[in-house]
Amino acid sequence: MITSRSTIQVRYAETDMMGVVYHGNYLAWFEVGRTQLLRECGVVYRELESNGFRLPVIEVGCKYLRPALYDDHITVVTTLAERPLSRIRLAYEVFRGDTLLVTGFTVHGFINLQGAPVRPPAIFREAMRAHFGTDA
Amino acid sequence: MITSRSTIQVRYAETDMMGVVYHGNYLAWFEVGRTQLLRECGVVYRELESNGFRLPVIEVGCKYLRPALYDDHITVVTTLAERPLSRIRLAYEVFRGDTLLVTGFTVHGFINLQGAPVRPPAIFREAMRAHFGTDA
Amino acid sequence: MITSRSTIQVRYAETDMMGVVYHGNYLAWFEVGRTQLLRECGVVYRELESNGFRLPVIEVGCKYLRPALYDDHITVVTTLAERPLSRIRLAYEVFRGDTLLVTGFTVHGFINLQGAPVRPPAIFREAMRAHFGTDA
Amino acid sequence: MITSRSTIQVRYAETDMMGVVYHGNYLAWFEVGRTQLLRECGVVYRELESNGFRLPVIEVGCKYLRPALYDDHITVVTTLAERPLSRIRLAYEVFRGDTLLVTGFTVHGFINLQGAPVRPPAIFREAMRAHFGTDA
Repeated sequence: MITSRSTIQVRYAETDMMGVVYHGNYLAWFEVGRTQLLRECGVVYRELESNGFRLPVIEVGCKYLRPALYDDHITVVTTLAERPLSRIRLAYEVFRGDTLLVTGFTVHGFINLQGAPVRPPAIFREAMRAHFGTDA
Repeated sequence: MITSRSTIQVRYAETDMMGVVYHGNYLAWFEVGRTQLLRECGVVYRELESNGFRLPVIEVGCKYLRPALYDDHITVVTTLAERPLSRIRLAYEVFRGDTLLVTGFTVHGFINLQGAPVRPPAIFREAMRAHFGTDA
Repeated sequence: MITSRSTIQVRYAETDMMGVVYHGNYLAWFEVGRTQLLRECGVVYRELESNGFRLPVIEVGCKYLRPALYDDHITVVTTLAERPLSRIRLAYEVFRGDTLLVTGFTVHGFINLQGAPVRPPAIFREAMRAHFGTDA
Repeated sequence: MITSRSTIQVRYAETDMMGVVYHGNYLAWFEVGRTQLLRECGVVYRELESNGFRLPVIEVGCKYLRPALYDDHITVVTTLAERPLSRIRLAYEVFRGDTLLVTGFTVHGFINLQGAPVRPPAIFREAMRAHFGTDA
């Protein structure tokens, strides 16, 4: 299991007239979280794209328990629980201090620049092997 | 079952560097869809808020089959399949022409201005009764 | 002078906790307006990009007179006052009914895919000639 | 003169299909910059709103020199050059390392919850006096 923590301070632009963070904006925070998790594994997503790989979101789910507010200091805890095969599933927990606000997940698959599914790039496979053990 | 159709033309602002619509932006399109569905039922969401009710998103799920592109004409088909009780569940299908791009759902519950769960407002209950039949 | 009208219905996602449209979101509405103006001139911006041209924003200005609100029906009036040379300057007026809410302008220049300034594409030059008269 | 520095890492959500940050998103970065400047002066904008004051944007201007890219580390330098009277004017410079990408300004005025212009709150006037000297 790989876990990473990212911190975010809520922008006014991210709120809506309900006085809280617009529910759609958490997806961008998940993106911040997984970019950070990958970086901590030695995988810089920007470089993956430069090398012709893309990792789009195939599925997302999100449960909203309590709202985040403007100027809050938020922590996104991102978890890769299992060694990914063709699909990569990440889980997210969004906290303000010790208070859990939102949980969610995303599922991803690597594609090439033409949009066709491809095997994960070598750097990614090696990073996963380093964390989860040898290929079985 | 209540179904509504909304049309959207994709903005440049909604794309990302993958050359497609950013996955988080579909949630705003779902919002367009459900506002339209409610309006067609005689329920203007803006007026609900003026009357002290709010209908936040409690849960969302989304599956991305094919990407929407800049300048595409998009149709969001929003469906309320069952008469809502305390929770309201809406389903969404996002199309470009006949091609299904994205499916999703949202779950909502009414709250008051203090954030406490409340019974749906009378106008909403009446609209649901008109479409789904009498209270059982 | 070329003028075009676009209509927009304000999304909840576009509001902020001040209860009005977030000031940054008007820039996306300006984009809707100029895409429409170009289309009415026979220039489809998406096709320009497909042909290797890009028309980034070089400068923007915006004055906020009155706020737009959720669910408002908004009209963006976009004007190309003068025949563009190397720089293209567009003006915008954002209305709710007869009430002027926001004014603004953008300045643009054509670049190629490498980011170097280029002469406008032929289709654009012809469209401008058709509206503003012959090359002097 | 008061100057403040804020750092931002560019999110994928902030890019567009031109492969760079969408021009409208810099306005949210300016917002991050001025929130930080105010905080460093001892003025927490969130508390101003809690106390019934709002500080909307009345005018904005922005010049785009070079694009910011995904994952860039960006610095926003925010400057309050003169002691504000009824209007507050802030200037912004957006850098990647030593490279200036964007310059801009915003103009603001305090209003109350009903939207009427009001004198700045005491805490703000005191902070300005502390930085710019006594009332003349």
